[in-house]
Amino acid sequence: MASKKKIAYFDNAATTFPKPEIVYQFMDEFYRQYGVNVGRGQHSLANEARLRVDDTRKRILRLLHCTPDSKVVFTSSATESMNVILQGLPWENGMNVYVSPFEHNAVMRVLNHIGKKYNINLQVLHVEEKTLFYDLESIKYQFHDQTPHVVIVSHASNVCGAVAPIKEIFDLAKTYNAVTVVDMAQTAGLIKTDLSVVKADFAVFAGHKTLYGPLGIGGFIFKNDVKINPLLYGGTGVDSANPDLPEEIPERFEVGSPNILAISGLNAAVKWIENTTIEEIYKREQENKKKLISLIKNYDNIKMLLPEKEESIGVISCVFDDYASDSIGKVLDEQGVAVRTGLHCSPSAHRFMKTFPAGTVRFSVSYFTGEEDFEILAGALDYIQNNS
Amino acid sequence: MASKKKIAYFDNAATTFPKPEIVYQFMDEFYRQYGVNVGRGQHSLANEARLRVDDTRKRILRLLHCTPDSKVVFTSSATESMNVILQGLPWENGMNVYVSPFEHNAVMRVLNHIGKKYNINLQVLHVEEKTLFYDLESIKYQFHDQTPHVVIVSHASNVCGAVAPIKEIFDLAKTYNAVTVVDMAQTAGLIKTDLSVVKADFAVFAGHKTLYGPLGIGGFIFKNDVKINPLLYGGTGVDSANPDLPEEIPERFEVGSPNILAISGLNAAVKWIENTTIEEIYKREQENKKKLISLIKNYDNIKMLLPEKEESIGVISCVFDDYASDSIGKVLDEQGVAVRTGLHCSPSAHRFMKTFPAGTVRFSVSYFTGEEDFEILAGALDYIQNNS
Repeated sequence: MASKKKIAYFDNAATTFPKPEIVYQFMDEFYRQYGVNVGRGQHSLANEARLRVDDTRKRILRLLHCTPDSKVVFTSSATESMNVILQGLPWENGMNVYVSPFEHNAVMRVLNHIGKKYNINLQVLHVEEKTLFYDLESIKYQFHDQTPHVVIVSHASNVCGAVAPIKEIFDLAKTYNAVTVVDMAQTAGLIKTDLSVVKADFAVFAGHKTLYGPLGIGGFIFKNDVKINPLLYGGTGVDSANPDLPEEIPERFEVGSPNILAISGLNAAVKWIENTTIEEIYKREQENKKKLISLIKNYDNIKMLLPEKEESIGVISCVFDDYASDSIGKVLDEQGVAVRTGLHCSPSAHRFMKTFPAGTVRFSVSYFTGEEDFEILAGALDYIQNNS
Repeated sequence: MASKKKIAYFDNAATTFPKPEIVYQFMDEFYRQYGVNVGRGQHSLANEARLRVDDTRKRILRLLHCTPDSKVVFTSSATESMNVILQGLPWENGMNVYVSPFEHNAVMRVLNHIGKKYNINLQVLHVEEKTLFYDLESIKYQFHDQTPHVVIVSHASNVCGAVAPIKEIFDLAKTYNAVTVVDMAQTAGLIKTDLSVVKADFAVFAGHKTLYGPLGIGGFIFKNDVKINPLLYGGTGVDSANPDLPEEIPERFEVGSPNILAISGLNAAVKWIENTTIEEIYKREQENKKKLISLIKNYDNIKMLLPEKEESIGVISCVFDDYASDSIGKVLDEQGVAVRTGLHCSPSAHRFMKTFPAGTVRFSVSYFTGEEDFEILAGALDYIQNNS
């Protein structure tokens, strides 16, 4: 492997890195000891693995304050979750689908695919361009004009960090009985969310982002009020003689061998969040966001695209004077700073923010972003300013 | 975690366990150091992760002797791979689909789903019930009578271990230009296979079984002769402004963040196979199979369902006198032996072998099955015999 030079990692919106030490440790230990196929009433190793899966479901439900009727469905990623939910909905021609202006391709490309089969009417929720503020009064009129059937909102943008007022939006949407989906890829475990109050039918999470778990595990909260058709078919370990998938949730949506490697890591991660407390993690992440903003403000060759009024997470998109974002990314890399440049798989967000097609340089912090990271970043930004 | 009492693990067909030490070690080390989101031209950590993904693709292609036009598509599992391939085929009413009698629910449930949308004619390839021998002459007549459009063959049964003569079957199928799919979940890395000679359009593999890698990674070899429609939509990290998926393979079929945790483990696993050699792994696995057969032969309360002529892998299904397979599973577990009982997600195979719906007790070995495992198993089988 290559050198171990310290790299200032500002790409946490792609995946949080590093993970809490306990996540690496527990995952390695558990997989060595119980790295078998999860099973019911099979052998003790399989049972132990199953208990860990069940415990992880329980902890996620508790973390998100879910109602007792809610279930956790595990998938391999937030993207797969979004496909299962959106492709599984009972689509009909003429349905009105509302999305935020910040949706990821995990939503937009799925809707584009569905739009080839059904004549759906895609609408964008009103957000003020300048402030990135969701205009609830205006959204109320939108819904009144064209009844919402499906409303999909990215809880926090992976491009500019803007946090959507999901409770208010879904309250409005539910007056029309719309199906509501929240993409919590950038917020689960970071922003305190009470899903017993937020009227989301589906809440999607990614294990490897703000939940501080490993890659390979994501999922969604399923309230079972809305029926969806499965997308993936296969063995479920139960009801095997049935040529169809079992009716039970989560079994109906979980085919193939459960990924106990990643689930054990996620288990350790959620426990770490419980012990650290979500309030403390949020506080630290916001402090790091403020440090980042203060630092970047020192450079007048950099323009930040910040939500002016709306709450935001530690994801800051920037445009540098005179240089394309990809070129800045390369220089930052040479200077030991990891960022993500371009469109961040969210071309819609960039179109909305007028940074399409050039994209931005995105800096994103986590709980673990430290002084050394900021020092390296400051050095790199000095270098760019001095060499412009 | 629970006690560390040695458990004799005979459930390797579910997932090989343990993995080679280097797999645990490398995966932990790599993920700690480069556990970021794989990217092109982003930052050095992302590039290092990408190199590891590319290297893993190359090694898998080499391991299976693929032609230069072949591509590896990574998915989260063999089940997901089978869904992507089968649901992606250009189905039409009236197509004749041939399967082996041993197909897993990862095939059968997908076909059942497709059968609800299209009027497909499902046929089972002729296999002699007694010997579990593929009757190629008879299959030739089957194909002649009803032209094959799609032929799906499990390379080795996860219930009885019978190995299919895939070269011969696909040679016949290709005289009719059928689409050919081989499920190598139980054979990739174990049975020397030359995919430059075997006329498979798609070859599915599971990372966590005979490839000795971790859970969370599977995939398929794609020759790109047969066009399939994508099943999953989302971000691909490239061509983000395109509302459709990119045309390039593998990008078109790989959405969301690549699972570098599992891919790094698979990378180490394939290297381990290269160093150990596939011949040596096969030899050891066959020796362990023979030991298992010899051991079980000592007990006249156990009937083994062995392929009589056909080559087989180290997967042995058994029926015990007087006791249901699940009860035997429980006793074996109490005696420290891990097996899998029931239908093994392959009800078709059990129907064919007349062990449906009761199922069997399945013992499966790996390269790592050792003397101590056999001793514990002997003790447990003694106990069952003495207490029958």
